[in-house]
Amino acid sequence: MIKTPAIPLHSSGIPTRRDFLGKALAVGGSGFLLASMKAWGMDIASTRDAPPMLSGSGKGKTVVILGAGLAGMTAAYELSKLGYTCKVLEARDFAGGRCQTARSGTVLEELGGAKQVCNFDRGQYINFGPWRIPFNHRSTLHYTSAFGVPLELFNNDNDAAYIYNDNAAGPLKGKRLRQFEVKADMRGYVDELLAKSLKSGVMDQQVNATDKDLLIDYLVGEGYLSKKDLTYRGTEGRGFKVNPGAGMQPGPGVPSDPLAFSGLLESKLGHFYHSVHEFTQQSTMLQPVGGMDAIAKAFEKRVGKMIKYHSEVQKLRNLPNGVEVTVKDTHTGAMSVVKGDFCLCAMPLSVLRMVDADFSPKFKTALAAAAYAPVCKIGLQMGRRFWEEDDQIYGGHVYTDTKGINLISLPSGNWQGKKGTLLGYYSFGADAAELSALSPAERAEYAVAAGEKIFPGAYRKNYESSFSVAWHLVKYNMGGWAEWSEEARAQAYPVLVEGEQRTLLAGEHMSYLGGWQAGAIESAWQQMERIHQRLSTQGAAA
Amino acid sequence: MIKTPAIPLHSSGIPTRRDFLGKALAVGGSGFLLASMKAWGMDIASTRDAPPMLSGSGKGKTVVILGAGLAGMTAAYELSKLGYTCKVLEARDFAGGRCQTARSGTVLEELGGAKQVCNFDRGQYINFGPWRIPFNHRSTLHYTSAFGVPLELFNNDNDAAYIYNDNAAGPLKGKRLRQFEVKADMRGYVDELLAKSLKSGVMDQQVNATDKDLLIDYLVGEGYLSKKDLTYRGTEGRGFKVNPGAGMQPGPGVPSDPLAFSGLLESKLGHFYHSVHEFTQQSTMLQPVGGMDAIAKAFEKRVGKMIKYHSEVQKLRNLPNGVEVTVKDTHTGAMSVVKGDFCLCAMPLSVLRMVDADFSPKFKTALAAAAYAPVCKIGLQMGRRFWEEDDQIYGGHVYTDTKGINLISLPSGNWQGKKGTLLGYYSFGADAAELSALSPAERAEYAVAAGEKIFPGAYRKNYESSFSVAWHLVKYNMGGWAEWSEEARAQAYPVLVEGEQRTLLAGEHMSYLGGWQAGAIESAWQQMERIHQRLSTQGAAA
Repeated sequence: MIKTPAIPLHSSGIPTRRDFLGKALAVGGSGFLLASMKAWGMDIASTRDAPPMLSGSGKGKTVVILGAGLAGMTAAYELSKLGYTCKVLEARDFAGGRCQTARSGTVLEELGGAKQVCNFDRGQYINFGPWRIPFNHRSTLHYTSAFGVPLELFNNDNDAAYIYNDNAAGPLKGKRLRQFEVKADMRGYVDELLAKSLKSGVMDQQVNATDKDLLIDYLVGEGYLSKKDLTYRGTEGRGFKVNPGAGMQPGPGVPSDPLAFSGLLESKLGHFYHSVHEFTQQSTMLQPVGGMDAIAKAFEKRVGKMIKYHSEVQKLRNLPNGVEVTVKDTHTGAMSVVKGDFCLCAMPLSVLRMVDADFSPKFKTALAAAAYAPVCKIGLQMGRRFWEEDDQIYGGHVYTDTKGINLISLPSGNWQGKKGTLLGYYSFGADAAELSALSPAERAEYAVAAGEKIFPGAYRKNYESSFSVAWHLVKYNMGGWAEWSEEARAQAYPVLVEGEQRTLLAGEHMSYLGGWQAGAIESAWQQMERIHQRLSTQGAAA
Repeated sequence: MIKTPAIPLHSSGIPTRRDFLGKALAVGGSGFLLASMKAWGMDIASTRDAPPMLSGSGKGKTVVILGAGLAGMTAAYELSKLGYTCKVLEARDFAGGRCQTARSGTVLEELGGAKQVCNFDRGQYINFGPWRIPFNHRSTLHYTSAFGVPLELFNNDNDAAYIYNDNAAGPLKGKRLRQFEVKADMRGYVDELLAKSLKSGVMDQQVNATDKDLLIDYLVGEGYLSKKDLTYRGTEGRGFKVNPGAGMQPGPGVPSDPLAFSGLLESKLGHFYHSVHEFTQQSTMLQPVGGMDAIAKAFEKRVGKMIKYHSEVQKLRNLPNGVEVTVKDTHTGAMSVVKGDFCLCAMPLSVLRMVDADFSPKFKTALAAAAYAPVCKIGLQMGRRFWEEDDQIYGGHVYTDTKGINLISLPSGNWQGKKGTLLGYYSFGADAAELSALSPAERAEYAVAAGEKIFPGAYRKNYESSFSVAWHLVKYNMGGWAEWSEEARAQAYPVLVEGEQRTLLAGEHMSYLGGWQAGAIESAWQQMERIHQRLSTQGAAA
């Protein structure tokens, strides 16, 4: 039973916006909440920036939570605050799920693969699971704030980084460019073309005289066109041949020449950017200082006592008044049964569908509907931060079309440090499947060879050590994230969100923030609210 | 006399790129250096990323350096390593010049103005002088690296920050928007207009069939146009009405509607951005952790013993074999004479032209040619980081056309901290002159009132304390930086760069990196090399 919370009054006697919204949600549900948000001018805020405000108590009731990833730990943390007994069953010896960071000593054994032990230097690490927190993922940021996890900026957008396409058509094939060269020139030429067309009068049918002048004015500024003849001849933002400096030499420097428009078009290099980033890729992005697993550790510190580690779920049974989960101790092989009033299953669907569970055929069919993404990453420790020292690239992504590489991402921290660990590839789909067939040493060699083409003379020379993952080969994950076809989203997803009997599902797969920590957290918030509702109602029948 | 340095061999026996370039510079001068750089594919590198490699010794020779700003301290640091005795005369009781950070206890007294004592909380600060280091300012980054000054990213480009123009024409006047709304919509509409025109055939004279298809393809991607009808209908990157989330509600969220094209054009809001940033405004930018004065302090730690503080230069005389500088002790009023073999004058022109110096009339005329920029800044300590908590703006600049404000810049550090200090305005020219006539309390009120319009209910409520500066009213600075008209750059600048008799000038004003620390450092590198050359040559005559 949810009681309407009183609006806490601050010294001013005026409820804060958050108080008000909390009340709006409690009183009127999400429809009323959205209306309230609009009234308060919060159109762009996410619907959930804090856990649901629940009243009542869970005392004497037990929730069995399957999986100590972010979804499972979020639920355990919040439900236990309400008085529930939470029993979290985790197959691994550690919590965090996909939220892992590899550093010296980290062990990873892929299915049918070699065992890797990370031997990076002290202080070096790679976030081989989630690695970025967009500014609009308020739920994730709620916990970094609540738990005091120190953050730093993650550079997700660095125009000074290179773009290098091996398979580009035309003269720019295999040519290393700065991203700002491509952006400045493409936009400059496009703006020139449109400005001149407007000026010539051929578009007078579509654009009236006032808008025409305003638009030409905009295009001149946006594209750095000459005001006189509306021509693009390059701009300092695309870099100099010789940088400006002191005195007479270099003095003002020597401007650079733009690339030819036709060659740019032919290369399709302009396709790497858009007018603005997509929602989840926008600046600003943040990361925990020292590794993403700081978030997992912060949760684990608070709910660790509720977690039963090395407990692999074998069987799940919904009973008339509760649930019964059979687990195997992966150390001893001993089997045991864990009972509770309700079950929150926060393991990936890829794993859950291998568990012996008493779901209906409809539910089981739905469980099979999501594909799990093959995803590969590799961290490469470099003895020298040559990308900063030689190339002045401070974080961000080098883009390339080399098969399976996609991007080389440079670390956003420890600036000007002695060594650095970069992300050597971020690979999906068929490419990832191919890459994962290689041994760790072969993957490293592949990544180093690709990087060497972009940073000749430096990449291979400075390479020291690697740590790679193929998420689809990691036991208890079996993929990077759930991928929903349009049909599966329409048919299977609602069935799974609804849950069955005394079991609800949570995780990034139960959200539209797939693959993001925010999806796991917000899904947990949503489902724990429903569990609380169910267990607060007599009988708790579905 | 500059000797050709031997190329140091590394263990590999192969000279590094930097060794090679050092040799190239020493052997063949900057022309040869540039050719070498091109050959090594370093077109975009600045010409100077390290101090000049000089040989010989300055033992027994004294250089009098006027001003312990970054230029003066750079010269003292490098010349003393060569064996020179450096006597740095600094009018203030501390070094750093304009490189200052205000924190609790910082005192500032403007000419004819009230004395401010900063009373920010511990940990709060404002960089009221230089505040950003562009990635391409290799000279500044050379010293942060050499001195181990810890850096963090400075967010110079945050599309999620607001734009708010009080004086915009049309329906967007006084409307608060996210920058990504304006960018996405303007570019979307522009791309739509061009794509449709191309498709219609009216531009077939200008664009051939192959390019036409390639260009339409590009425009569809750049502007998020519908592939089917080439129309822009908004995109998720401009924000959602309701953000996506978990489960069925909010599920996929609710998309937002684009602004009308005509209103956007009328408002001219699109003018705030360009295809790419200008050279010195590009991401990535960096800042020292805890305040820009970490750079000044790092220099001072190394050259502090050479600095004579509270020594105001009164008179400068060039003698046949040296220089003679008369200084006044600002504490005691006592006058004294400091002698040396050469003088490097690293004080602003605005101050130097008030010194009794024996320059030629031509040189004195040149000294008067640069204008000094009126520049105002204000730091506002806020009791709560409402821009992060309520608005999800993590650093970057809020743009506004409110007179004298220009931007409100949000701090790029201490994320999710309890309090935060933002830059309340950054004002130039006539606006700055007007602002500076206000008392510190009136300036703060003006800034708070402007911010309150953009963050209603939060800005004023959280405002706690201010610290403001008008650089044109600061003794020993008299302006933010030197501004060169085209004519002054052509006529006066070369005269000043050349110097006179036994005096050379250094500082940001002796560079094309005006107002930047890199200008001061690179100018010092250049002039100290010339001093070394002159003093290494018999007689050292001009």
